[in-house]
Amino acid sequence: MRILKKIFSKSRSLEDGIFFNALEKILGFPPTELEPYRKAFTHRSSNKLDKEGNPMNYERLEFLGDAMLSSVIAGYLFNKAPYGDEGYLTKMRSKIVSREHLNELGKDLNLIQFIESKVPVQHFGDNIHGNIFESLIGAIYLDKGYVFCEKFINSRVIIPYVDISRLEGKVISYKSLVIEWCQKEKRLFHFDIFEDNAIDGQRLFGVRLSIDDKVIAKARATSKKKAEEKAAQRAYFAFQEKINKK
Amino acid sequence: MRILKKIFSKSRSLEDGIFFNALEKILGFPPTELEPYRKAFTHRSSNKLDKEGNPMNYERLEFLGDAMLSSVIAGYLFNKAPYGDEGYLTKMRSKIVSREHLNELGKDLNLIQFIESKVPVQHFGDNIHGNIFESLIGAIYLDKGYVFCEKFINSRVIIPYVDISRLEGKVISYKSLVIEWCQKEKRLFHFDIFEDNAIDGQRLFGVRLSIDDKVIAKARATSKKKAEEKAAQRAYFAFQEKINKK
Repeated sequence: MRILKKIFSKSRSLEDGIFFNALEKILGFPPTELEPYRKAFTHRSSNKLDKEGNPMNYERLEFLGDAMLSSVIAGYLFNKAPYGDEGYLTKMRSKIVSREHLNELGKDLNLIQFIESKVPVQHFGDNIHGNIFESLIGAIYLDKGYVFCEKFINSRVIIPYVDISRLEGKVISYKSLVIEWCQKEKRLFHFDIFEDNAIDGQRLFGVRLSIDDKVIAKARATSKKKAEEKAAQRAYFAFQEKINKK
Repeated sequence: MRILKKIFSKSRSLEDGIFFNALEKILGFPPTELEPYRKAFTHRSSNKLDKEGNPMNYERLEFLGDAMLSSVIAGYLFNKAPYGDEGYLTKMRSKIVSREHLNELGKDLNLIQFIESKVPVQHFGDNIHGNIFESLIGAIYLDKGYVFCEKFINSRVIIPYVDISRLEGKVISYKSLVIEWCQKEKRLFHFDIFEDNAIDGQRLFGVRLSIDDKVIAKARATSKKKAEEKAAQRAYFAFQEKINKK
């Protein structure tokens, strides 16, 4: 019996260790407590209850994460767009935290790998990705506080995805921006497209964007055009970051 | 000319000093920079511009403060009501940050005393009070960061005004709660009502609530009943705080 208990507790901490490592990669910092994150990925179908008998699933954390995301983005936009009035700021924020955008963010981080549910993953609609992206932010707030939420949102949402010009509708295509820049700087560029493994029966396309024979950015999407655009956007921001650091 | 300049800069710092002291009283901590707070009380009618030529008034800060208020209240409710689901939390928050409630908060702090406007104060509707209450929170965020926002909202909104039982509709009247308690504890209570000075031509009633001949709470409102209820609520929370500290 003792041995069984030992094995059980060992296997549990191994599982915790795997979860911890995977989380750290996504968060960019080590979590302190695992429990809020477990909750962030628990679907209501698992029918779990906490010690007090309250339902334990990600829905409350979604509420919390949504609030934290909204205020972090508000703070960012306030500083970034000193020319924008209240209406402009509200509109820009709702573009950034749109359902579609949150789903994309959750998918890109592959958060669904952590889901605990009695419903098969294929049965979920697209919104599950955005929902658990929000609940993850709620868990970060509980575990580490507001400043870490800000840090996470900055590195996972703002730097890789938020571009005010594009949101304002000024940038139509990152691909054309990158091509323009390469032509001006006399650099050789190449989009290398390959068909990627299917996930849930959905065909995906992968793209590698090389400049001067060096791979600068990779991306996957459901169409060649989308994948190219995504890779170009990543390359664009990677360059911007470099320029800003100089 | 030099003397004039000196007098001018002296009179300005005197004005700053008065503003600083009044703010510190309201905030519960000394501000670091005055500029965000000046902006928080500048109405668009004053037609001010910042160094970059952007309009300088409280409207952008209102957006920022609204976001901070929403997330602080979300964090508070999440911890305070572990039994409430996402829908409950959303409903409770919207009760706390209702337009009516924010107007009341702004009025109680008499924030209108700081307003800089070309429109006479009497011409503003009731919403100005809530608007500059939100912009004040935005200014606190800019000046001192999220933790101070939390501190301010806790001491100025949550402790004196937020009572979950009442928001859930369980407490109908604080006056009856206080009377019940006094009867049970065999204490003498007395509501002393007096007509208060009129502000903007509006009649106000003042109430002093004494228990065992000691004044416990004071309040002002537009009707006797409202003033009694407000005083009773304050007494109730003052007692609760004492009980919690024990």
